[in-house]
Amino acid sequence: MDRRPCRSRLWRRAVRERLIRTSSTPRDSSAPAIAVLISGRGSNLKALIDAESAGSLAARIRVVISNRADAPGLAYAREYGIESLVLPHASAPSREAYDRALVDAFQTRGIALICLAGFMRVVTPVLCDAYPWRILNIHPSLLPAFPGAAAQRQALEHGVKITGATVHFVTPELDVGPIVRQVAVPVNERDTVESLSARILAAEHQLYPDAAQLVLHSPWRIEGRTVVF
Amino acid sequence: MDRRPCRSRLWRRAVRERLIRTSSTPRDSSAPAIAVLISGRGSNLKALIDAESAGSLAARIRVVISNRADAPGLAYAREYGIESLVLPHASAPSREAYDRALVDAFQTRGIALICLAGFMRVVTPVLCDAYPWRILNIHPSLLPAFPGAAAQRQALEHGVKITGATVHFVTPELDVGPIVRQVAVPVNERDTVESLSARILAAEHQLYPDAAQLVLHSPWRIEGRTVVF
Repeated sequence: MDRRPCRSRLWRRAVRERLIRTSSTPRDSSAPAIAVLISGRGSNLKALIDAESAGSLAARIRVVISNRADAPGLAYAREYGIESLVLPHASAPSREAYDRALVDAFQTRGIALICLAGFMRVVTPVLCDAYPWRILNIHPSLLPAFPGAAAQRQALEHGVKITGATVHFVTPELDVGPIVRQVAVPVNERDTVESLSARILAAEHQLYPDAAQLVLHSPWRIEGRTVVF
Repeated sequence: MDRRPCRSRLWRRAVRERLIRTSSTPRDSSAPAIAVLISGRGSNLKALIDAESAGSLAARIRVVISNRADAPGLAYAREYGIESLVLPHASAPSREAYDRALVDAFQTRGIALICLAGFMRVVTPVLCDAYPWRILNIHPSLLPAFPGAAAQRQALEHGVKITGATVHFVTPELDVGPIVRQVAVPVNERDTVESLSARILAAEHQLYPDAAQLVLHSPWRIEGRTVVF
């Protein structure tokens, strides 16, 4: 137990030095800065980049962070000249230490909004408390239906005729934070997990930039657990 | 305990005699016969009547049964010349006895499909086993979200941005039978329980006749718990 905080501190310092060394000049310093966290192909990252380019998302994607060095989505960051950072979770002494490193990365870069986009990590209060109501996640169902993993398969197995996608604020509890925006997606007769997932993903690509734009630029408040714009 | 079956039999016989006495000639004997069960205003009953009149529901509503003598929806039955029957649940010795009386009423009238429309009774296996895959219910949410009572209030309190309505097959377990059809309904910023309920109800009035028409006239099968048309 007594070695753990020390190891954590050392790891954190090493990461912080790397973060500062690799940080680059933002493209448009007047727009709020977004960090996008990925673990895989990053198609929602691409949707956010496209929305920024099109002007429908008045923000700059300041950094892309992946917990996996082989995440294909990192290629988008390279392609569009966005700083990317690989922060392997295996190297972190604890979930909390990992999240403290994330917080350091966000603070160094003046991040206003964090978008989890297929980021396969449960976040801890360390991150949520540092960025209250500033972390979004996208989930491939109409929450509260089908939380957790394999939401599309859950929907198919339940036999629903309508499912969808949800952008919600992130809280330490999985998939239950207040809902920012949802979109309905029909389930077709011959859908497989793959075909349904593709249809939901296409809807997500519209939903996520819209939700980020709303949270950044529309007045809103939380009443109970309802996000009121 | 030993008096109960006897009382149940007597009650059942009395009801059966009343059912036979009050049954009337069907309007169109070639179309499948529907029984609609109500407890209240019967607005979905009205939607089914309208769909039958318009020809979009190829069926005849053969009987309207209410468990409450003061259900306002009974007026629709009178207005459109449909047989109505009040079967007060308070008079039934048990839930099972009540459901046996319903089965008697359906069998006497050659009912092909039973539509629960705001019928505030949980049905027993007595009814479900007598009419397997022949009983529909409509619920004011996108099941499996918000089952049970006050689904609209549950949706508002959860802060969802999309809810809806579900037509599903009835099983003895509440609100979990295989789903026939669903419709999505947006939740608006300033919705009250009343305004949201009204919007969902309007969607139900399209959904329920469509679902009844599908079940009666499209080939379908159950795969797992999915209704495949």
